Amino acid sequence: MAAERSRQGDGGIGTARLETFSDGVFAIAATLLIIEVGVDERGRSLSDALLQAWPSYVAYAISFLTIGIIWVNHHTVFAQIGAVDRAFLFINIGFLMLVAFIPFPTELVAAHLREEDARAAALTYGLTLTGTALLYSALWFYAALGGRLIRADADQRIVRGISRSYLPGPWIYGGATLVALVSATTSIVLFGAIALFYVLESSVFARE
Amino acid sequence: MAAERSRQGDGGIGTARLETFSDGVFAIAATLLIIEVGVDERGRSLSDALLQAWPSYVAYAISFLTIGIIWVNHHTVFAQIGAVDRAFLFINIGFLMLVAFIPFPTELVAAHLREEDARAAALTYGLTLTGTALLYSALWFYAALGGRLIRADADQRIVRGISRSYLPGPWIYGGATLVALVSATTSIVLFGAIALFYVLESSVFARE
Amino acid sequence: MAAERSRQGDGGIGTARLETFSDGVFAIAATLLIIEVGVDERGRSLSDALLQAWPSYVAYAISFLTIGIIWVNHHTVFAQIGAVDRAFLFINIGFLMLVAFIPFPTELVAAHLREEDARAAALTYGLTLTGTALLYSALWFYAALGGRLIRADADQRIVRGISRSYLPGPWIYGGATLVALVSATTSIVLFGAIALFYVLESSVFARE
Amino acid sequence: MAAERSRQGDGGIGTARLETFSDGVFAIAATLLIIEVGVDERGRSLSDALLQAWPSYVAYAISFLTIGIIWVNHHTVFAQIGAVDRAFLFINIGFLMLVAFIPFPTELVAAHLREEDARAAALTYGLTLTGTALLYSALWFYAALGGRLIRADADQRIVRGISRSYLPGPWIYGGATLVALVSATTSIVLFGAIALFYVLESSVFARE
Repeated sequence: MAAERSRQGDGGIGTARLETFSDGVFAIAATLLIIEVGVDERGRSLSDALLQAWPSYVAYAISFLTIGIIWVNHHTVFAQIGAVDRAFLFINIGFLMLVAFIPFPTELVAAHLREEDARAAALTYGLTLTGTALLYSALWFYAALGGRLIRADADQRIVRGISRSYLPGPWIYGGATLVALVSATTSIVLFGAIALFYVLESSVFARE
Repeated sequence: MAAERSRQGDGGIGTARLETFSDGVFAIAATLLIIEVGVDERGRSLSDALLQAWPSYVAYAISFLTIGIIWVNHHTVFAQIGAVDRAFLFINIGFLMLVAFIPFPTELVAAHLREEDARAAALTYGLTLTGTALLYSALWFYAALGGRLIRADADQRIVRGISRSYLPGPWIYGGATLVALVSATTSIVLFGAIALFYVLESSVFARE
Repeated sequence: MAAERSRQGDGGIGTARLETFSDGVFAIAATLLIIEVGVDERGRSLSDALLQAWPSYVAYAISFLTIGIIWVNHHTVFAQIGAVDRAFLFINIGFLMLVAFIPFPTELVAAHLREEDARAAALTYGLTLTGTALLYSALWFYAALGGRLIRADADQRIVRGISRSYLPGPWIYGGATLVALVSATTSIVLFGAIALFYVLESSVFARE
Repeated sequence: MAAERSRQGDGGIGTARLETFSDGVFAIAATLLIIEVGVDERGRSLSDALLQAWPSYVAYAISFLTIGIIWVNHHTVFAQIGAVDRAFLFINIGFLMLVAFIPFPTELVAAHLREEDARAAALTYGLTLTGTALLYSALWFYAALGGRLIRADADQRIVRGISRSYLPGPWIYGGATLVALVSATTSIVLFGAIALFYVLESSVFARE
């Protein structure tokens, strides 16, 4: 019966459905970030409060951009995938669980970047992004190892290219997280720089 | 005229549209869970507050995973269904109403698991999941009894397999809910174990 | 140029796209309702607070069901529509604006149904639903009058049936709203009864 | 490898996928606006508080309508576009980042329009809309200049018509923003008038 149920599941959820559901979570998580943006108006004018709230805007922008990049990459991955199984479905759900968690540490950073609690906030932010990167790699390598879920007609050079470009991800995010032990602000700047570098590298430098 | 309207409704909403709408509610309900995650920083450092907030993370993870499992199963069910009628539409809306309710008891558990109020929180959580399981069963059996809405070409063994596997659902969730009368924490652990067991059973043990 | 732009718009957004966008707003508005559900724990135990919060659950259920019915009907309407123009697009956006507003009066009712402020809350709730019904009618009659946007192959009996069944809508909601001047609770009960009657009438009585 | 990755991206995300994702962000951002609507009941009855909260309703309506117009126009643009590249994807993400930001200044306007802080609130609102208009123009002209991403069979008159109608956008919004330096209320009225004018111009005057 277990095998039957597995087949049903594969019939019920193809890659298209999985992508649509994941896109929904990406869009909602990104748009929910704005709920965490707020100003602290106690004892000052609104203009002052708005200027003091710059860590909110920075954290919003970095998180939105990071989720946008995840969205773009998710499709790059799925363009190579021809089938899903239950384990892949649940790795993807675990991955989405971490993406949907991003608004929480974003708010911590927004609220605490200028205080003594900045380190704890930046560490939580970094750990969330590192965990996301880890599960993202797990998702890809589960599909790619031995060509388990890769499309029959996939270009092997592209598959190897993705594998190569996904290996350093968790290390880069983990490194930027460790930096928070020394300087929370530097750590957050690094997360922004990683996102910007990715955007520039893939959209500007990629032309030839 | 009633019959006419019914035909219109069937024309207007097929199974695809119903699945897309349901997927939307699943994705939003799961992603909204993060709004309920918060830390209580009164009178302690942020690191302490973040560590003390572990019930928030546990409740978030259990609820997200449970909604993820509901999403996976919903498609398993719909792969066997060939038509919808108005009653089915409204049972599904009642079912979605309970799924969308999950963030509320999740927050109760997150906020109260370490207090004397833990029992009321865990009971509310358990009753919500049990109600969800009940309406899920109602949805399936409404469609399956007498083959009312089942696809003409559905494999009867698969249909019977789903019926068999859905019968115990409400009892299992109801049982875990009753455990909250004795120990709220044990009850929450059981809900987590049910979700994990389902994931492992269907994705790891299902291979042969 | 205006005519050109109009043609572009019609090319850009067909009925399918409009339905998908509307479905998104319905799903989000319904799922956001849970954010408005809360308990007031000041000076009592959580169990007491949860029991006292019954207006929250009632308001949540009525609003969720009402949005669910709107969703079902929206498709009934769109199954008869073959084209959209800019005015129709913007009537639909005005309609969605009111649907997306529902969580606000829902929270008012949830928070005030047991107090002296109940009347203002119920009136706001009723006015929102009446406005929604009015714009819903406007949407339909804009499309139906003279067959402006109706599909060439639409069954005229069905079109007339929808017109007939949509005429009383705003009056029924307006009437239930006026009842709030006398009794807020009766008014809310009526909104629940209207929703339940619709569900029963269209799904149970519709069988022959 | 960069070129490879670029091709993968184009394969992974076509215009349909990009439109669906953007539609999701538009629908969520518009529906989330209601979270920012609230009443301040301190020291007055609910009816008084509801009447005093009119800036909330006005701000909600203007922002909802503005996002609705953005949605309609986004499709007008995409109907002319035949391909996407990475830079276009990321300009679109930056654009969505600003659309998703709109609920924040909407709340500021709702909370402060009747106070001395109105100017800062209206300026923030105007800057957000001006930034949105700027990135919207950037999105279009990136695609249109030299016909970079325009469909091979696009009508050049339509393409030039869009270019002509998009040029003044940022200037109009920028102008209405500067008005806030003199009068916050006038500035907000102007943003409402711009939205209403657009709706009327494109849906009523466009008929001939």
